[in-house]
Amino acid sequence: MITVYGDPISGNCYKLTLILALTGRQHRWVDIDVVKGEARSAEFLLKNPNGRVPLVAFEDGTFLAESNAALFFFAQNSRYWPTDSRIQAEVLQWMFFEQYSHEPFIATSRFWIRFLQARQEYARQLAAAQPKGYAALDVMEGQLNRTPWLVGNDTSIADIALFAYTHRAHEGDFSLASYPAIRDWIERLQRLPDFVAMPA
Amino acid sequence: MITVYGDPISGNCYKLTLILALTGRQHRWVDIDVVKGEARSAEFLLKNPNGRVPLVAFEDGTFLAESNAALFFFAQNSRYWPTDSRIQAEVLQWMFFEQYSHEPFIATSRFWIRFLQARQEYARQLAAAQPKGYAALDVMEGQLNRTPWLVGNDTSIADIALFAYTHRAHEGDFSLASYPAIRDWIERLQRLPDFVAMPA
Repeated sequence: MITVYGDPISGNCYKLTLILALTGRQHRWVDIDVVKGEARSAEFLLKNPNGRVPLVAFEDGTFLAESNAALFFFAQNSRYWPTDSRIQAEVLQWMFFEQYSHEPFIATSRFWIRFLQARQEYARQLAAAQPKGYAALDVMEGQLNRTPWLVGNDTSIADIALFAYTHRAHEGDFSLASYPAIRDWIERLQRLPDFVAMPA
Repeated sequence: MITVYGDPISGNCYKLTLILALTGRQHRWVDIDVVKGEARSAEFLLKNPNGRVPLVAFEDGTFLAESNAALFFFAQNSRYWPTDSRIQAEVLQWMFFEQYSHEPFIATSRFWIRFLQARQEYARQLAAAQPKGYAALDVMEGQLNRTPWLVGNDTSIADIALFAYTHRAHEGDFSLASYPAIRDWIERLQRLPDFVAMPA
């Protein structure tokens, strides 16, 4: 059985919980407390030299880091990974967008506010993240006004990747009030069979 | 024939030049000047609502954004994309690492220094980027001490993605002096058949 090293508060880690549930895979979970620095311990760095969670450990002793690479792997031969390579590329386009244009603003703001409880200390960074995070939400809203899922008519790991932090955007002071298409998409995703919620 | 909208100074755009050369594909190139804001013009935003280059335009009128998604697409059925899905996931692991843990520090520093020529204005951000950029180089050096390419014994788009900004790290004030494995890997990549250099 595979093992996932993860922090339950992390949206990146929740992506794995969700794809493993949606594809009906058993797994073992080992808690790693990011705020306490456990992802940077000497022992953990032997497993992932980049010092981040989630990390997947396979039975053969190998590891896979990066939440979106793990989504790719676990979605193989499922409805969440399309078969046409042009469409696959579009799914990956949204997943790279998520890591570069969305996560660093929306997830990071949530981390500073909710988990470090350092709203004052990070006031400057939080202010700088606001326009960039909303710009990412604007791009998503535009797409979701045209198609029910980020890539056309089928749910994919692009949706799972972007759902993780978008549905908790309010915890980073981002309001979805003016994003009706995103709100509809969140509800649509929550109705998927075998959906599991992120811990509160 | 496909069209690439790109800025010749951008490492993300150079990734496409390189994979298209390595896989022997013709393409048309349209210059977009990032420093002049051409990627955020109203006309360009109709093509890529995220306002970034590179952007690929296909003959059927569709577009593909995100350099690493384009690398994935153009590497299909070539030696640069492995066939086993576990190995494919490892290639993507490095490509997500590139966009999240490497590019925001090493490429961005180069952009502030060389293209905006704003070393003083960005002094604080440049200082903050130093330890994070070197941390990314440390992770690469560790892997390249163990294997000739980032994923085992075969060149892949993980190498192409990370080559783009790593071989120009000095332009962002990152020295490769204490990274002999990275320096060897750069030379190895430059010897690939049909390699083309990034514009000076």
